[in-house]
Amino acid sequence: MSEFSLIEKYFKPLQGKLQYVDVGIGDDCAVVSVPSGFELAMSMDTLVEGIHFFPDVNPEDLGYKALAVNLSDLAAMGAMPKWFTLSVTLPEENEAWLQSFCSGMQDLIKQYPISLIGGDTTRGPLSITIQVHGMMREGQRLLRSTAKVGDKIFVSGLLGDAGLALNAKMQKIALSPEALASVESRLLRPEPRLSLGRLLLASASSMIDLSDGLIGDLGHLAKASGVAAEIFCEKLPLSKYMQAHVDSTGDFTLPLSAGDDYELCFTVPPTSVQTCRCDVKDQAVAITEVGRIVAGSGVTCLLNGEEVEQGRGYQHF
Amino acid sequence: MSEFSLIEKYFKPLQGKLQYVDVGIGDDCAVVSVPSGFELAMSMDTLVEGIHFFPDVNPEDLGYKALAVNLSDLAAMGAMPKWFTLSVTLPEENEAWLQSFCSGMQDLIKQYPISLIGGDTTRGPLSITIQVHGMMREGQRLLRSTAKVGDKIFVSGLLGDAGLALNAKMQKIALSPEALASVESRLLRPEPRLSLGRLLLASASSMIDLSDGLIGDLGHLAKASGVAAEIFCEKLPLSKYMQAHVDSTGDFTLPLSAGDDYELCFTVPPTSVQTCRCDVKDQAVAITEVGRIVAGSGVTCLLNGEEVEQGRGYQHF
Repeated sequence: MSEFSLIEKYFKPLQGKLQYVDVGIGDDCAVVSVPSGFELAMSMDTLVEGIHFFPDVNPEDLGYKALAVNLSDLAAMGAMPKWFTLSVTLPEENEAWLQSFCSGMQDLIKQYPISLIGGDTTRGPLSITIQVHGMMREGQRLLRSTAKVGDKIFVSGLLGDAGLALNAKMQKIALSPEALASVESRLLRPEPRLSLGRLLLASASSMIDLSDGLIGDLGHLAKASGVAAEIFCEKLPLSKYMQAHVDSTGDFTLPLSAGDDYELCFTVPPTSVQTCRCDVKDQAVAITEVGRIVAGSGVTCLLNGEEVEQGRGYQHF
Repeated sequence: MSEFSLIEKYFKPLQGKLQYVDVGIGDDCAVVSVPSGFELAMSMDTLVEGIHFFPDVNPEDLGYKALAVNLSDLAAMGAMPKWFTLSVTLPEENEAWLQSFCSGMQDLIKQYPISLIGGDTTRGPLSITIQVHGMMREGQRLLRSTAKVGDKIFVSGLLGDAGLALNAKMQKIALSPEALASVESRLLRPEPRLSLGRLLLASASSMIDLSDGLIGDLGHLAKASGVAAEIFCEKLPLSKYMQAHVDSTGDFTLPLSAGDDYELCFTVPPTSVQTCRCDVKDQAVAITEVGRIVAGSGVTCLLNGEEVEQGRGYQHF
């Protein structure tokens, strides 16, 4: 099957409902327009076999996750998703694999206003690169660099489950089948917090998404803002399985440092905390205050007021 | 060295002169604006070791080419380059390699108004994915799908030299060192025809860039336009080395079907040919009429009026 037949059969159905697209899949470039008063956010992420996913990954989960982690970057700016481009590098033509991979992406395309508008397919070691594009009203976006001393630190959802699942799959931690099934869905199918991200535009002062672990990503936010962060370990939102692991080991490394949670971490000035809680109270995902911004640099983790030593975020090299 | 130190040291210098960039490298997303009355063109291309380049490629040439082939897609729409994002997957951290790779990109960043605004670095088998973004005035772009019966077919520059170099490097064709040096520069350092592409907006009816060979790419243009194309082999613009190869073998396969030329192929209505020639007469690269659009489908190659059998364009699978 030629590259062009593959595009017709598998990729064109990922166009969803095209918005602001003048030229879509099939020309040298896609051409889009951005309405007056709006800006464009874009982010690119690559997933490589053996680094970001196991060789035996279900291609449907891989398709879902590759798009979800990119949407999570849009969520972290408070942007509305619009378009994505996709480069798939495959060792060989495999239509069953492509069918399943694209079906995983469809799960997100049905939920969010995101359309495939272009990309590339090449032969080579399995890897996926996606670039997402989102819109926001001019100047209405949440950066990493705008946290202030005194701000409260919040996270969405629960922390560490993806790391717990990864450790269980690598047989470093024993989990019951029920527990594994529950936390594995967090590893394989992270939910991009898009609507939460937009609701936070009104009250948060800075935001980042948690791809490399709370300490690592909050560290980037603190560094970009020229401040320090304190995390209160006893306040970290944990699933019952994560809580059981922490209770039995006394070790907060997973919720503090494991990657792949794709929750939002954001700061809120004290005077906006009530507004913030009110704005997000109808969201399916809860928010939890887990620390505060202080003067200085770096991230300190405290357990009932005592400092605890913890690992750093995931290092790519 | 952490991913963040790599970004500071190697990638931030690729920002060039930022235009219309609200948030650049370093946040969850880049944020850009598109002035009123303009649209945005975007294209993504992946280069994989062993498929698109030899494992012993000079990283400086690789950096140049990875960006150049993407800029060529913007040229083929008549767009002005603005920003690019870059995902580099590397087997191991190698600062000398990165330094050289980025230096190759700088050669283009110094020539064209293109800025790096984001991307990703990951560990894995060597591959490069770039997405370029360009601007054009609303509705002012050249598509593949708008050629008309009667239009003349033109190409820029010379055809087949990149293929000749590739065959010589693979020791399928013998070339003198002087000949190899000349044609190899066309393989390693293709020039994106950006200013020519924009000048053609006024007179051309359709356009594509030649990445997979004239027959293959003109075939895409003809198919998208619902027409057929005839190529006159005796009119193909050839370097003296390519001409010598054709003279000695009687074989036009390289200029007709070899990829990697990155010249523009475009159609011009007969009434606009004079305007077209006049518009581009001061360009460093010449244009040559090589065929015509006729009714039907497919691409036919004629040599002095007789049909010749030729291969198809590069097939990715």
